[in-house]
Amino acid sequence: VRALVFDLDGTLADSTYQHVIAWQRAFEGSDIAMPAVEIHRRIGMDGELLLKAVDRAFGLDLSPMKRATIQAAHAREFSTMRDSVQVFSWARDIPKLLEPLHVKWAIVTSGTQNDVAPFLEIVHADRADAVITGDDEKQSKPSAHPIARAFEQMDVAPHDAGVVGDSVWDMLASREAGSFGIGVLTGGYAQAELSASGAFRVYRDIGEFLLRLEEVGIAKP
Amino acid sequence: VRALVFDLDGTLADSTYQHVIAWQRAFEGSDIAMPAVEIHRRIGMDGELLLKAVDRAFGLDLSPMKRATIQAAHAREFSTMRDSVQVFSWARDIPKLLEPLHVKWAIVTSGTQNDVAPFLEIVHADRADAVITGDDEKQSKPSAHPIARAFEQMDVAPHDAGVVGDSVWDMLASREAGSFGIGVLTGGYAQAELSASGAFRVYRDIGEFLLRLEEVGIAKP
Repeated sequence: VRALVFDLDGTLADSTYQHVIAWQRAFEGSDIAMPAVEIHRRIGMDGELLLKAVDRAFGLDLSPMKRATIQAAHAREFSTMRDSVQVFSWARDIPKLLEPLHVKWAIVTSGTQNDVAPFLEIVHADRADAVITGDDEKQSKPSAHPIARAFEQMDVAPHDAGVVGDSVWDMLASREAGSFGIGVLTGGYAQAELSASGAFRVYRDIGEFLLRLEEVGIAKP
Repeated sequence: VRALVFDLDGTLADSTYQHVIAWQRAFEGSDIAMPAVEIHRRIGMDGELLLKAVDRAFGLDLSPMKRATIQAAHAREFSTMRDSVQVFSWARDIPKLLEPLHVKWAIVTSGTQNDVAPFLEIVHADRADAVITGDDEKQSKPSAHPIARAFEQMDVAPHDAGVVGDSVWDMLASREAGSFGIGVLTGGYAQAELSASGAFRVYRDIGEFLLRLEEVGIAKP
């Protein structure tokens, strides 16, 4: 393994549960009572796809304009909570840990630049070999496109790279991209869900993973 | 099956994710950054036990006074969000559905009377055969005590009753009480987690369960 792609929300930043609440309030603003778990299990998709998925599953028949309204409401609601989101402490150490091992790294997130900018700064994304946000790619996870783009920018073959994420969408996208998935439990998915969707290994959090890089084939040179 | 015990938070009311945020803010108020998932997977315990569990798992060494401070902060934070909590629509129909079947029912919650009162009203708890809150029993779930007390009040044997809940603590308590557990996914636990902790069956939500009562041995008389 010569490179790692990290998901952001739920993996490096503890933002999943705030996103759930923000989406739920956004739906409520359009008089739709959406169970929190139904949102939770779709976090990690980009917003547009999440809305389409919920629309179809619940037969809501939302117009494109209504979807845009809800998406804008989510962004507004999340922005009121963003300051209270914690970045997981180990996430700050990624460059310090990976650079001596000559492992390239990237961040690939479905979040908008606006949602994720403060977190990118905390995790030293300026030292990453690639950063792809929801604004950079029309198709976001679970599409493999943004991950494939990160591989390109890092100049690594997919099978030489791992994708670290908290959601089944990360695992699905990593498979599609020809890479392999590494799960973390910090987004609230269970180990069984991540394993079933293809995670090669599942760790409690990013810290436990970074302490056990050898288990995914990364060794000191 | 002659009786059903229902959990409240995450099962009849969509309150789990708000409780996660309320606890996280309460910890933050004491300068403790607690990952949301660590709280999520302990929701359903009573507050005091949740604090002891987190205390031990993270070696926080919280004083009893500090624990009381955090618990009070949680109650305060949750009260600001309680009005936005939705009761799952089918939960309102429990008496209407169970009474014709001559199935007794109870609500057993770790929540305080103060936290749950508005939800109890919506689900017609006045028509239940027993209602046990966190204020009624010193030991809350996962202890079997409150469930055993509900069985007593309903005058049913544990093996003639099912316990419907969203968390592994409900499943554990139901086993301890000599009953059997029925899981719902609305609290954000995965099917595999509920099955592994003893759920006899797992349903998407309370509505799906109420449509399929025959699957747990309840039939029209």
